[in-house]
Amino acid sequence: MTQNIYDDPHFFAGYATLDRSVNGLDGAPEWPALQKMLPPLEDKTVVDLGCGYGWFCRWAREQGAARITGLDVSLKMLDKARSMTEDPAIDYQRCDLATLQLPAQSIDLAYSSLALHYLEDIDTLFGTLYKALKPGGMLVFSAEHPIYTAPLQQGWRVDDAGAKSWPVSHYQQEGVRISNWFAEGVKKQHRKLATWINALTGAGFEIIHLDEWGPNAAQIAASPALDEEKERPMIFLLSARRPAQR
Amino acid sequence: MTQNIYDDPHFFAGYATLDRSVNGLDGAPEWPALQKMLPPLEDKTVVDLGCGYGWFCRWAREQGAARITGLDVSLKMLDKARSMTEDPAIDYQRCDLATLQLPAQSIDLAYSSLALHYLEDIDTLFGTLYKALKPGGMLVFSAEHPIYTAPLQQGWRVDDAGAKSWPVSHYQQEGVRISNWFAEGVKKQHRKLATWINALTGAGFEIIHLDEWGPNAAQIAASPALDEEKERPMIFLLSARRPAQR
Repeated sequence: MTQNIYDDPHFFAGYATLDRSVNGLDGAPEWPALQKMLPPLEDKTVVDLGCGYGWFCRWAREQGAARITGLDVSLKMLDKARSMTEDPAIDYQRCDLATLQLPAQSIDLAYSSLALHYLEDIDTLFGTLYKALKPGGMLVFSAEHPIYTAPLQQGWRVDDAGAKSWPVSHYQQEGVRISNWFAEGVKKQHRKLATWINALTGAGFEIIHLDEWGPNAAQIAASPALDEEKERPMIFLLSARRPAQR
Repeated sequence: MTQNIYDDPHFFAGYATLDRSVNGLDGAPEWPALQKMLPPLEDKTVVDLGCGYGWFCRWAREQGAARITGLDVSLKMLDKARSMTEDPAIDYQRCDLATLQLPAQSIDLAYSSLALHYLEDIDTLFGTLYKALKPGGMLVFSAEHPIYTAPLQQGWRVDDAGAKSWPVSHYQQEGVRISNWFAEGVKKQHRKLATWINALTGAGFEIIHLDEWGPNAAQIAASPALDEEKERPMIFLLSARRPAQR
């Protein structure tokens, strides 16, 4: 089973302080780029893998999605998400994505924000999602970038002049990375971008767009702390499609 | 016009000492991986973009390719390549890839080894190659990896314990990087993996396979100097296809 760190009280409390927790999608600087990669949602069936507080589920409903399922392994997250809507078109379910099952050709969009890097086995998930998507349906997700996850000890190097760089090592050594992020021993998986992409094409997906996200000048002006994100991508955004004709 | 550093006498002399110059394809540790990404070549029409000494052109001929065109901007490289074959099925032509023109739907495989990172404009080239490929035809190439090219000053960091890492910075700042590699002021272009991939999908290509190449244990045992290549990818290999049905 995938580690359920979000139900750790310290982690949950720390996570609640994040701008993306307090302010939702608009608190996530990558959201404008991710939003542009989404298909029209009017009357669509959507699944959100690792829905957290449910910000995306509620937003998808505002865009006219007909049925939205938010999945998360964390009971605390699901409680919080359920407390924020009474819309019967939104359904929250507890699910370990490692054992996800979905009806064949039942969904138009599978979405996931910063959740899939917790999964040890991405091939099985992508196979499940491919079968669950209708032909022409899309998978749009973000995850931590392998440049960020590669080092066994992740952190900036600052030189004598104050310039920041991100020392990359162990890039070819895929697998678990342990970090201390609101809690001790948070387990994430390092996998190469090539592994993400080949897992998608291997499952039958067509790669549509990749964004190794970084802030633009206006975002840095508004949030100077984002400046260092120019130096190396912390996350990537990827959209893929189940081809209509296969 | 793209910089023609290969005709610099010092560069040409230095390049001639590389294992991949002396021993050809078998001197390039990524060749076994790149070879696996190639389609069958029997009776096919092949273009090699940046053919150098022509090792790949001659190999393609051995695989039964019917017509092979080797393109290079360097007269010294073309002279060397021409001196190594008299096969009328292999034609070497001087070409700046920045102004490449090819007949529509005339080729089965466009191949390039470690040449495209010299080009300032990759969109135009990929558009040209898409039109020149027959439906179902493939583009298979290698280029320097953006993790390697990102820093303005490229080099290893070695910590007190002797561990190597590659400090990444300026990843989002695409454009020229100047390095001293057998000659002063060698100009290469840094572009994100996302930019390579989106340029391909934007031109109509389907992404087939990506390899952020690193050495395997047997290669490191045979060539201990390759050990550091585990830490960060220096090059990537990519295969893409012009879909048969479009």
